[in-house]
Amino acid sequence: MLKTMHRYAGTSTVHMALGGGKTRLGGAQRLANSWGTLRLASTNIPTTQKGVIFYEHGGQLHYKELPVPKPKPNEILVNVKYSGVCHTDLHAWKGDWALPVKLPLVGGHEGAGVVVAKGENVTNFEIGDLAGIKWLNGSCMSCELCEQGHEPNCEHADLSGYTHDGSFQQYATADAVQAAQLPEGTDLAQVAPILCAGVTVYKALKTADVKPGQWVAISGASGGLGSLAVQYAKAMGLRVLGIDGGDDKKKLFHSVGGDVFIDYLKSKDLVYDIQEATQGGPHSAINVSVSEAAISLSAQYVRPCGTVVLVGLPAGAYVKSDVFSHVVKSISIKGSYVGNRVDTREAIDFFTRGLVKSPIKIIGLSQLPKVYGLMEEGKILGRYVVDTSK
Amino acid sequence: MLKTMHRYAGTSTVHMALGGGKTRLGGAQRLANSWGTLRLASTNIPTTQKGVIFYEHGGQLHYKELPVPKPKPNEILVNVKYSGVCHTDLHAWKGDWALPVKLPLVGGHEGAGVVVAKGENVTNFEIGDLAGIKWLNGSCMSCELCEQGHEPNCEHADLSGYTHDGSFQQYATADAVQAAQLPEGTDLAQVAPILCAGVTVYKALKTADVKPGQWVAISGASGGLGSLAVQYAKAMGLRVLGIDGGDDKKKLFHSVGGDVFIDYLKSKDLVYDIQEATQGGPHSAINVSVSEAAISLSAQYVRPCGTVVLVGLPAGAYVKSDVFSHVVKSISIKGSYVGNRVDTREAIDFFTRGLVKSPIKIIGLSQLPKVYGLMEEGKILGRYVVDTSK
Amino acid sequence: MLKTMHRYAGTSTVHMALGGGKTRLGGAQRLANSWGTLRLASTNIPTTQKGVIFYEHGGQLHYKELPVPKPKPNEILVNVKYSGVCHTDLHAWKGDWALPVKLPLVGGHEGAGVVVAKGENVTNFEIGDLAGIKWLNGSCMSCELCEQGHEPNCEHADLSGYTHDGSFQQYATADAVQAAQLPEGTDLAQVAPILCAGVTVYKALKTADVKPGQWVAISGASGGLGSLAVQYAKAMGLRVLGIDGGDDKKKLFHSVGGDVFIDYLKSKDLVYDIQEATQGGPHSAINVSVSEAAISLSAQYVRPCGTVVLVGLPAGAYVKSDVFSHVVKSISIKGSYVGNRVDTREAIDFFTRGLVKSPIKIIGLSQLPKVYGLMEEGKILGRYVVDTSK
Amino acid sequence: MLKTMHRYAGTSTVHMALGGGKTRLGGAQRLANSWGTLRLASTNIPTTQKGVIFYEHGGQLHYKELPVPKPKPNEILVNVKYSGVCHTDLHAWKGDWALPVKLPLVGGHEGAGVVVAKGENVTNFEIGDLAGIKWLNGSCMSCELCEQGHEPNCEHADLSGYTHDGSFQQYATADAVQAAQLPEGTDLAQVAPILCAGVTVYKALKTADVKPGQWVAISGASGGLGSLAVQYAKAMGLRVLGIDGGDDKKKLFHSVGGDVFIDYLKSKDLVYDIQEATQGGPHSAINVSVSEAAISLSAQYVRPCGTVVLVGLPAGAYVKSDVFSHVVKSISIKGSYVGNRVDTREAIDFFTRGLVKSPIKIIGLSQLPKVYGLMEEGKILGRYVVDTSK
Repeated sequence: MLKTMHRYAGTSTVHMALGGGKTRLGGAQRLANSWGTLRLASTNIPTTQKGVIFYEHGGQLHYKELPVPKPKPNEILVNVKYSGVCHTDLHAWKGDWALPVKLPLVGGHEGAGVVVAKGENVTNFEIGDLAGIKWLNGSCMSCELCEQGHEPNCEHADLSGYTHDGSFQQYATADAVQAAQLPEGTDLAQVAPILCAGVTVYKALKTADVKPGQWVAISGASGGLGSLAVQYAKAMGLRVLGIDGGDDKKKLFHSVGGDVFIDYLKSKDLVYDIQEATQGGPHSAINVSVSEAAISLSAQYVRPCGTVVLVGLPAGAYVKSDVFSHVVKSISIKGSYVGNRVDTREAIDFFTRGLVKSPIKIIGLSQLPKVYGLMEEGKILGRYVVDTSK
Repeated sequence: MLKTMHRYAGTSTVHMALGGGKTRLGGAQRLANSWGTLRLASTNIPTTQKGVIFYEHGGQLHYKELPVPKPKPNEILVNVKYSGVCHTDLHAWKGDWALPVKLPLVGGHEGAGVVVAKGENVTNFEIGDLAGIKWLNGSCMSCELCEQGHEPNCEHADLSGYTHDGSFQQYATADAVQAAQLPEGTDLAQVAPILCAGVTVYKALKTADVKPGQWVAISGASGGLGSLAVQYAKAMGLRVLGIDGGDDKKKLFHSVGGDVFIDYLKSKDLVYDIQEATQGGPHSAINVSVSEAAISLSAQYVRPCGTVVLVGLPAGAYVKSDVFSHVVKSISIKGSYVGNRVDTREAIDFFTRGLVKSPIKIIGLSQLPKVYGLMEEGKILGRYVVDTSK
Repeated sequence: MLKTMHRYAGTSTVHMALGGGKTRLGGAQRLANSWGTLRLASTNIPTTQKGVIFYEHGGQLHYKELPVPKPKPNEILVNVKYSGVCHTDLHAWKGDWALPVKLPLVGGHEGAGVVVAKGENVTNFEIGDLAGIKWLNGSCMSCELCEQGHEPNCEHADLSGYTHDGSFQQYATADAVQAAQLPEGTDLAQVAPILCAGVTVYKALKTADVKPGQWVAISGASGGLGSLAVQYAKAMGLRVLGIDGGDDKKKLFHSVGGDVFIDYLKSKDLVYDIQEATQGGPHSAINVSVSEAAISLSAQYVRPCGTVVLVGLPAGAYVKSDVFSHVVKSISIKGSYVGNRVDTREAIDFFTRGLVKSPIKIIGLSQLPKVYGLMEEGKILGRYVVDTSK
Repeated sequence: MLKTMHRYAGTSTVHMALGGGKTRLGGAQRLANSWGTLRLASTNIPTTQKGVIFYEHGGQLHYKELPVPKPKPNEILVNVKYSGVCHTDLHAWKGDWALPVKLPLVGGHEGAGVVVAKGENVTNFEIGDLAGIKWLNGSCMSCELCEQGHEPNCEHADLSGYTHDGSFQQYATADAVQAAQLPEGTDLAQVAPILCAGVTVYKALKTADVKPGQWVAISGASGGLGSLAVQYAKAMGLRVLGIDGGDDKKKLFHSVGGDVFIDYLKSKDLVYDIQEATQGGPHSAINVSVSEAAISLSAQYVRPCGTVVLVGLPAGAYVKSDVFSHVVKSISIKGSYVGNRVDTREAIDFFTRGLVKSPIKIIGLSQLPKVYGLMEEGKILGRYVVDTSK
């Protein structure tokens, strides 16, 4: 305990877990007292915990004992119960992107758990509330981009599992303003992939600027992101055309509510077939697949004045469109990144209402390195979620 | 005159020029009477006129006597006084584009003149009103695109000087609903280039989705389209950065009100210089230049969440942008074609208020073939306007 | 037949019913020929027809033989099969509004039928197509309001069953650009109320500026307009709270898909109950009821930054809101009139897809005067549709 | 100084003024050291200061020695140099509004000064930066309203000079995220009224939803808010019609760039005159005047589909509009409160660029009670700004 006391002593005040209540801890004296109280509390915050960490890009993924981080005045400490595993985690580990990664790093940015402590500035969470840790851990909130709600594009964005230790550990911190507010009773394993995959496709659908009743095409409709996109699109009143390959994909697409499926393995003229099925082309095309060719095609089949949305990140890929038809058809090609606070709230709300389901496979956190291996080999089907208690 | 009578007899009723008044002509009998009246009227509609026509792509441009066209029930007949000459006229003559051209063809789509007759359905023009003939001569008004104001994108768009004989003649017809309404007293020579060039850049600025006080970059700022774009942008409360090459261009840019000029011939790092001058990149970049390289660059220097607008049509060019930064910067690349009815009204209004000036050189219509020659050689500076009376 | 020939002779050319084909009729000679052909055609256009007409406000409603109108160059002639009856028809008959009414008048503005003739300017309908006649029969298409899609607000709006003889007759004319395009196979009786009631509530929901997932309250949720509004709202991905009185109304509300019902006869604190059920108030409130008190209440219970939409027209009513809370809550109170071309297309599309049903009672056109009587006595439940053949 | 040390000891870490640099103070030990350093610094933070405080509504306004507040982890401490005086300050003192006021209270919410200390969470201000204290001192940033940028409407909004001691003192605290960022070199006296009056009218103009080139009417155009509104409107590319009474007001209106002035003391038919001058009515009307009659009138003269904006808060006033014309004209009546972070940034930017000037009268802070007296008597012309050093 002494060790723990030191962790918090001499820093800003924090509110800690006291069976759901809250106590303002003004200084060292009161902190010591609280800690005494905490011994008896239902939720004990340990000083160490289990997590998966790596020290260099592509280096070993260690499942080991790590110190429990402490929240800053604006942060909550979340006891992560489950965390989704995303391809971005693989990129962070390998150091694939130009954006520098914190090292050593605990990855993970789809963490769902319980608030067990909070900084003195935090007003929107109480101890015991459910919270989600997402890709955007925090941002400056005061640059021109943040002010307009483009927080993920903030130059000072702090990213979970990238520049900030993430959710592949039992206790993780997050800026309270950015952390996802999860309603009481949320299934923490199911909601995990919503925090990144779900929010991302929902944001893409908003970026598509389509109205209820219009057509949206989802390229890669039966993949992990795609099947979530189909469900969100339907819940938003859209008509959905899915593009993917194979009868299993077709079956999956219809099982989640999709309207019209085009099999790229069978179609002899994708542009024609898609435009025919949608009476002139979809009003928007969402590219969740990571195929450069598919992206270029979407600029062709989209309806005049329609919108092509880029979401997936094929390595080193370019979107290429011919200026003449880009102008004469008056299309837009928009990049859509991850969601902001509103997008997150809304995406979770659709999930909470039961309109979107996320098919997951649960494994122990200790098994995470194996999942990285499968991802690297491209053998992942569906979404893995790690249980941090195992 | 008998010949003229025949032209109109047996067709739909038309309203004809009677010194500004209007007379409904119900049938042959009344038509004959009116025609009698017309003999005394100040505005006589002849049966033939002067115009420039060509019979095959790249073929001779004949300045010759042509029949005066007659308006359909929904059309006005405009006595064209002046018409601007646009690069598109050259493309139509040469048959450069995939879109088929009417042959033989009278070109021209920036015609300004006086209404001298109108079909019986026409309610928005009176004889004697000033009117403009623009690129979009007419559209179906009842497809999904037309209904949403995307009339230029209508599949059945009828294009002046392309699929419909245009304004390089003394009398031309236009769908009354699409024809530009010009206020009394408008300088018909000055307004001519506004009808296409002006409306087009104004539309591009609207497509850019920028608010007063934000930065817009104009690539090709001191050319014909560019200098109009700068003036419209200033009138819309925008801050304008211009990109072009040479001190003369810089001087011209500032003379029309531009704020910051970047000389691409002098800059060692265009992206850096542009972002520096605009505190992070312009909120939008309007590409009126026809350089493929400039377009790609604009996707780099534009501010995060900003908009790249394509307007110019470099032959066979592609816009290419890297998917990763397109997504992470969340930019949009939008094609902007020509304006619709609202855009036209608004663009003319800015001109009428004196906020936009168009520098022109007036020559006789009979000299038009020479201008085509100069355009082909790339020797055009500024905008030529033909006087149809010469 | 001679009589009919005279009707069309000496006027503009028209295209007439030839079993679905089209023939351009250039003049009297050709017209005579065509007419000869028409004798053999499946669709004969008679010279007279049955209709209901009145000659003065509140005067007798005559079910009698009327001449068949002829279409102008921009019009279609529709063989009306069914027409909905709307409260506005009652107002027009009684002359309740400041807006002057054409006299004598054939009322009706929810007519569904078949195109049997068309003016020479018409390009969007073929003979044999299904078409709908709606409140906005035609507008100038060239004023600032029309250009922006606010056609119903056009100063020169021509209104079916008000300033233009409407659909309470077997043959009625409509501007082709404004007439509703109905897909092949449409149930003409069912679609009738969609043409006004459906489009109007759909427009109100668009005016409400709400996004899928947000809450909308419908005041008067189980009435004719209300139950359509509930269905459109659900199809648009909204969450719907209905306000009405009585258990039957509650049952009806849930049967058409409504989420939460508040019975104003039972609630002790409507504002509280509505805000509680919607976690802070609906994002928008649509007032289809004609209660002045209900309108004022909606400004209270709507969520901060929310929108109150006015649709219903209680006679002589005022909307009154206290400036302080209007400002501090930053709400909007918006008037929503009838739909434009896009709204109409979209509203019909939802109907065609089976997402919106309109419960109707079919009676013969000859029975129309009785329906007026019931409306005046306030005894109407649901929507009456007249069959023009009876 | 010992006293000051106590003020900060045992609390969260703060960054303090060190001649513009910044030092992170981790705990008591370092704090003591820093404080030693601070003794030598150019900017000393005293423990007490001068301010104006009142203890009960309508009670005496004491100009006296007050303790210097200390910033929370998310706050900055601003050495206020100048503060504008607003009518809201009078309302807060008198307790006019339903919203409860903190007591005792230091009023003021238009404070401009220098950052002299900051909490450990603050990343967007450095010591020595210029900052503005505005009406919205802070908000939760995590409710649905905050997330959408409607921070002023947050249920937990903390208001300067209302629920949080304001800028009528030499040192005041503000949430760093909400505090206005003022560029180096800003004239702190001139900018003061921009922080509330300027931002408020700018926000109203944004709420008006008008585009460059359209007409806006300002009711009360030559008052304090009005003359700022005129300047912002012109900078935004709008055409401005002003309504006020008297030749002096007319002169003032034109001197700040207004286009057309309507004198309500002279006009015999305001609606007619305003619609005539704007070719059909302004696209929006901004009501900065506090006349209930003027507000109702604006709903009449505004253009169809136009927007009436409410900004001024006439005590106990109601906006009343007749439902029939509200619907048929399809107008919106929108409440516009104060600006959010973006609005503030943008409003200041227009000021910084010299496009908006605020005419002020500077007096000493000690004279503030006299200004309250003048305000109560309605004798204020223009904006008073207090110099906190006097």
